[in-house]
Amino acid sequence: MIGIFDSGVGGLTVLKALREQLPSADVVYFGDIKNAPYGSKERDELTALLVAGLKLLQERGAGKMISACNSASASLAISLFDAFEVEPDAFIEMVGPTVSALRHAEGTIAVAATPATVRSGIYESAFRMLGKEVRTIPIPELAAAIEFGAPDADVEEIVERTLKNERGIDILVLGCTHYPLAVRAFHKALPSAKIFDPAEAVALRAKRRFWPQEVGEGKTLFLVSKESKRFRAIAAGLFGERGWDIEVLE
Amino acid sequence: MIGIFDSGVGGLTVLKALREQLPSADVVYFGDIKNAPYGSKERDELTALLVAGLKLLQERGAGKMISACNSASASLAISLFDAFEVEPDAFIEMVGPTVSALRHAEGTIAVAATPATVRSGIYESAFRMLGKEVRTIPIPELAAAIEFGAPDADVEEIVERTLKNERGIDILVLGCTHYPLAVRAFHKALPSAKIFDPAEAVALRAKRRFWPQEVGEGKTLFLVSKESKRFRAIAAGLFGERGWDIEVLE
Repeated sequence: MIGIFDSGVGGLTVLKALREQLPSADVVYFGDIKNAPYGSKERDELTALLVAGLKLLQERGAGKMISACNSASASLAISLFDAFEVEPDAFIEMVGPTVSALRHAEGTIAVAATPATVRSGIYESAFRMLGKEVRTIPIPELAAAIEFGAPDADVEEIVERTLKNERGIDILVLGCTHYPLAVRAFHKALPSAKIFDPAEAVALRAKRRFWPQEVGEGKTLFLVSKESKRFRAIAAGLFGERGWDIEVLE
Repeated sequence: MIGIFDSGVGGLTVLKALREQLPSADVVYFGDIKNAPYGSKERDELTALLVAGLKLLQERGAGKMISACNSASASLAISLFDAFEVEPDAFIEMVGPTVSALRHAEGTIAVAATPATVRSGIYESAFRMLGKEVRTIPIPELAAAIEFGAPDADVEEIVERTLKNERGIDILVLGCTHYPLAVRAFHKALPSAKIFDPAEAVALRAKRRFWPQEVGEGKTLFLVSKESKRFRAIAAGLFGERGWDIEVLE
């Protein structure tokens, strides 16, 4: 069973890509909506929430895990893996596969992400080791607006306001998994840039690492730490009404 | 081939333990003496030095790696592994195996380490996830004193001065691989505490992960970024005069 962790709906974009690569894997997904948004929290709190989430997924049977939350996993130290008794190669996060996929990309790369992810410096560090400099652009509140269902116009306004003075970006990486749910706002704000959603690179890595061990019945169980109609609506929009269950943890 | 990384002589204590478990593994060891001591550097610089060191080891044929430097690897983010194209399970650092080995230990645990390691908070975070609180004690200058061969009396004085007001420690973890080279000073300063050297736990993990792939001729090549008689003397003291070569990189 594959566990997916996110602060809420963002990881659904990763699950969507995973389903293309591993349609028959069984998945348990934890959306920590009670503690969302994560993007303005400090590193220690994020690490603690992430580890608690991974332990929950483990208790529910997940032997392989994907952290779809950049904010929480971007600076997760490898030293901590022993604490939840998972071998490091059973764990996939967003930054590594993204950087790897863009290793030979040409042009100016920028990464839009939450303040927590930007503050961690992880994208700069990882790209720098490949000899690439990247610009990171924090977008406060955007993940929360998407999580809690702000009107499209408000979401577009946040994106537009943040990006309007950015010049010369050839590739914009969506460094938060909530952002692909507002991809149109990014295309509108930066019409000449290529928008890079890391989900496919992550899903391909999951396939390479987890297949064929993770061949099951294609079932999905969603766990949420708080009831959310928004979560149910997005899940139904992406995956239809059948083939998944949802459990609200209290 | 197994690569071992350290800022200098500290990793020799890990290599010694590794030789007990994997006598016939071929090892290439990099001691970055030119940049030692590491313990007072900032995180970004440490990460850059560590990755540069791991890349060097990789170029020299290492497919498996051990970072014997707590300061450098304690907060290494898993996201960075793609930058040097190493699978995370081919990499072993000090904190994880230490925490795992002390999972069921009874009594009050303290960790003595460099200021950089203490500042990272990694030992507290890792133990806290197991429900254990630990105290961390920074010892500025001790690793440098050991690296550069300060007289025994000076080393004892540093240890004694730092630990003299510490009370109620049942287990003292040596959270820097240089410290086992001064283990007598620790026993003297804290006669009633058990002194825990993580080297054996790390070597056992290396055996579990790397054996039997890493069965070779038992050769050791030391690379140092600066000439050091002290390094040669400690290596000869631990491993004898034969079975290893040393190359000074300029």
